[in-house]
Amino acid sequence: MVSKNEVKYIQSLYQKKNRMEAGLFVVEGPKLVEELLQSGFEVKTVYATADWCKAHPKVVTIEVTADDLAKLSHHQTPNQVLAVAVQQVQNGLPTLKDNVTLVLDGIQDPGNLGTIIRIADWFGIRQIVATDDTVELYNPKVIQSTMGSFLRVKVWYSDVAKLLSESTVPVYGALLNGTNVFQHPAVKEGLLVIGNESKGIRENIMPRITHAITIPRIGEAESLNAAVATGILLSHMIPQ
Amino acid sequence: MVSKNEVKYIQSLYQKKNRMEAGLFVVEGPKLVEELLQSGFEVKTVYATADWCKAHPKVVTIEVTADDLAKLSHHQTPNQVLAVAVQQVQNGLPTLKDNVTLVLDGIQDPGNLGTIIRIADWFGIRQIVATDDTVELYNPKVIQSTMGSFLRVKVWYSDVAKLLSESTVPVYGALLNGTNVFQHPAVKEGLLVIGNESKGIRENIMPRITHAITIPRIGEAESLNAAVATGILLSHMIPQ
Repeated sequence: MVSKNEVKYIQSLYQKKNRMEAGLFVVEGPKLVEELLQSGFEVKTVYATADWCKAHPKVVTIEVTADDLAKLSHHQTPNQVLAVAVQQVQNGLPTLKDNVTLVLDGIQDPGNLGTIIRIADWFGIRQIVATDDTVELYNPKVIQSTMGSFLRVKVWYSDVAKLLSESTVPVYGALLNGTNVFQHPAVKEGLLVIGNESKGIRENIMPRITHAITIPRIGEAESLNAAVATGILLSHMIPQ
Repeated sequence: MVSKNEVKYIQSLYQKKNRMEAGLFVVEGPKLVEELLQSGFEVKTVYATADWCKAHPKVVTIEVTADDLAKLSHHQTPNQVLAVAVQQVQNGLPTLKDNVTLVLDGIQDPGNLGTIIRIADWFGIRQIVATDDTVELYNPKVIQSTMGSFLRVKVWYSDVAKLLSESTVPVYGALLNGTNVFQHPAVKEGLLVIGNESKGIRENIMPRITHAITIPRIGEAESLNAAVATGILLSHMIPQ
């Protein structure tokens, strides 16, 4: 049984403002919660139905009915377990030397950010720097669409224009009329900038791009989805 | 001014059953509607606000207020214009010889189907065959996320297992433990099968795959999003 106040409190974490103030976030579903519990993230509370509790006797849980879980959940079909965890905020800046780092210039769609984090994880990229107006990492839709990759890939929110102006490593940008990425040599060190879904790479960042790269278009679509473009670029740029 | 019955009728088209019975679908927003009007699709009715009507004097429209448009719309922020058009249903089967054809085995997410159609359009692929349980092409979220590419790429819903069993062209399948797609020669003719988001390529189709291909994983993510995988595979397989 969960109290009305508890429902209210968890529900409040689906609002960015409250989530930021509390420094907490919500993770749902057996697969993600089980990965979360094995990660370095601090978990505050786990709410789970009887079956899940029984299958995980070592996890301290608050047992709830399916109806109660539905009251706490943000999902259309709540699934066994929901956890509240402490946000990890990355301070300072990542080490750019000898690394490939993704840079996101104002990605707005939570699904796109989550999918980009998942792609980074697939290709062994552990660092993403995002502009402050990029959608927030701990948005439930972002967390969900990372499929657990948020546990392995770190995201810094930072003044990207300043970072790039001080960078001594190559700055690749996904642009039209750049070098054909299909013929690009593998990249072992550098930043790859992915632009906003509708505006692309913005004016204050454009002068910092040292290498424009392009996915050749064979047909007629005007553009590719930002996450799809990230996946294609990395698949051609990351050394195997 | 739109009547209550008109609102009810348009709203009914957001349900698959009604949309299939009527053979119609809804397209929203200036960019998509303008592309639709220049395409081979038959447009039944265009509802638009005064500004849009003024800017398009040659288009027969029903002028509506922003409030009325909001009543017709499926979007959170309705944008100037909404059109009702006649569905194009592809009969028979596409020509497999000398073509690259995408095959979708039960893609469920409307955003994924739309994004895959957009990717196909980018890489010059004009034919997609989907299993009957793949999400419906005329779902408003699919149409929206194609970004207009549904006007150029044809989608057949068909008995895919039968099609593949009769195919005389190579059948590529996105699988684990296949040939590394990064080292794959360009493909000028064949079918590329993309599996369901959670189940992958299903049992009845698996025996029909003649060439398993794989996107090598460098990091730790368990899988890639279906649309992202499609984009990466095509970017390595389509001849430039």
